[in-house]
Amino acid sequence: MEPGTARIAVDLLGGDDAPAVVVDGALRAVRADPDLHLLLVGPPEVADALIAALEPVHRPRITVRPVRDKVGMADHPSAARAESTVRAAVAAVRDGTADALVSAGATGATVTAAALGLGRWPQVRRPALVATLPAVAGPVVFLDVGGSLEPRPATLARHAVLGAAYAAVAHAVDAPRVGLLSVGTEAGKGDRVRRAADAVLAAEPLPCDARYVGLVEGYDVSLGTRADVVVTDGFTGNVLLKAIEGAYAMAGGPPASGGAPRAAALLGVSGTVVVCHGAAGADDVASGIGLAAHLWRRRATDQVAALLAGRARTAHDHIIDTEVATP
Amino acid sequence: MEPGTARIAVDLLGGDDAPAVVVDGALRAVRADPDLHLLLVGPPEVADALIAALEPVHRPRITVRPVRDKVGMADHPSAARAESTVRAAVAAVRDGTADALVSAGATGATVTAAALGLGRWPQVRRPALVATLPAVAGPVVFLDVGGSLEPRPATLARHAVLGAAYAAVAHAVDAPRVGLLSVGTEAGKGDRVRRAADAVLAAEPLPCDARYVGLVEGYDVSLGTRADVVVTDGFTGNVLLKAIEGAYAMAGGPPASGGAPRAAALLGVSGTVVVCHGAAGADDVASGIGLAAHLWRRRATDQVAALLAGRARTAHDHIIDTEVATP
Repeated sequence: MEPGTARIAVDLLGGDDAPAVVVDGALRAVRADPDLHLLLVGPPEVADALIAALEPVHRPRITVRPVRDKVGMADHPSAARAESTVRAAVAAVRDGTADALVSAGATGATVTAAALGLGRWPQVRRPALVATLPAVAGPVVFLDVGGSLEPRPATLARHAVLGAAYAAVAHAVDAPRVGLLSVGTEAGKGDRVRRAADAVLAAEPLPCDARYVGLVEGYDVSLGTRADVVVTDGFTGNVLLKAIEGAYAMAGGPPASGGAPRAAALLGVSGTVVVCHGAAGADDVASGIGLAAHLWRRRATDQVAALLAGRARTAHDHIIDTEVATP
Repeated sequence: MEPGTARIAVDLLGGDDAPAVVVDGALRAVRADPDLHLLLVGPPEVADALIAALEPVHRPRITVRPVRDKVGMADHPSAARAESTVRAAVAAVRDGTADALVSAGATGATVTAAALGLGRWPQVRRPALVATLPAVAGPVVFLDVGGSLEPRPATLARHAVLGAAYAAVAHAVDAPRVGLLSVGTEAGKGDRVRRAADAVLAAEPLPCDARYVGLVEGYDVSLGTRADVVVTDGFTGNVLLKAIEGAYAMAGGPPASGGAPRAAALLGVSGTVVVCHGAAGADDVASGIGLAAHLWRRRATDQVAALLAGRARTAHDHIIDTEVATP
């Protein structure tokens, strides 16, 4: 456990099985980390039940922000504009009541609420969802896993920068190798966006002594042989992450080094935001809260933002190409 | 083992580790299946070495077609137009010397050679590569895994028909459930092509009592919970299949029911064609030869073609959207 108090806002109503699994996950996280404080955002009776279930010694570390409305999984992301648990959790980070937030609600709504409430970094039009997978030789940072479904090459290049910085800052990867996911490693393999992006990534200066290693394949996401950072579009990233999770379930469980991540960090907004997927269980929520605390303690979001400072806004990237409705 | 002689043409020079792994794979296949005949297509000295390694009792089941040129992995698919092992293997199927062919060479070249040499079905402009994964409740038929990288919705709908027919014919799946891979199961989830294709697939009549079950997720490819047939574009299919394979390697091996497939059937050309991926090992080549024999013995390609007969050519599908150069 890293030192330092971390105050995490938790969206009690986010996720298919909320609030039950969120309550369970929050209980596990609080018991596991004595320096963790939670701000429970949701119906007071749910928060009260959680507090009642907790040993009295832990209760002073829990506070509550009562909110009744939520964004449903089938709602349009713009529903996050209305009052809701996720919007209130974002507001708590903005006003300094919390250091970070975690939601297992609809990803698009969380990203929209975070972009609206916390503001986007000037160099990033498309916040990216970044997942970390355990692999043979260390972690693989994989992005985007759902924020930007149809990115242009310039967005993929910006994600390469974000991923390299995140690997160095959040996971202490030295001189990260950055690859672009495609159907083969030979130059020219892939669809139009990949063929165009390969040259753009090769020309993009990367932070933290990272270097672009070219095209990588699906194996490299699970095994990490060729790259420490794998860049792809949010559609491919999302389905691939879930396929790996399904494969671990088929194989009788994940490897000892850990399975597919069920929490992802949002990069590109001014605050620490962690998204669990809608089907998250209690362990996933606990792991998401743990990730949020880790990122806050390392000031990872601020450090990544600092590594981007001074870079120009992504060129040729003004057309909305994301499922996330940002104004 | 199903009964019936199957004569399989094997491209000795296809694959990153050819001819060694192809020779090993062919030896295993011949020893395992007494009704299997192989036509070895490649340099005579390679074929002779294979025959010399084989017990004399098996040797009468081997014939040789001497060819020296191959298509390299980095060559443009149109290189398959020139004389090459893969083109000669296709010619052997066309002239009736072989019942089916197997190549671990560059997929695009094999697809191009097969489309040129065997002809495409009138209803299918884009031959599809179909892989079968073992899942919890039975096989999952997954397509496309590399033939058509940027399909239009009409192509995805045609692939749904192909996949349903293939599941019924090749795997005896009763009333297959067909899903479209996306980032969530709620209607409207996904990128532009998925959102458009969802409605097109819902309106497409499917053969073999198949029904369209809507959007499915990455888990469903590995676990088969929601669908027996999962339809996607060739880019996503290719990277996802390799990611699952990597996950099984990470988990210490595939499940007892079998791992990720390393051979795929080509549907849409008039002949039985099986493609192994370039990194195939000897087991993969043997499994590809076994798949080719299985498909031939079931007359799967002909049966799928018959189920498509009478359907109109895919509408709005005249713009080339594949990596495969077909004239």
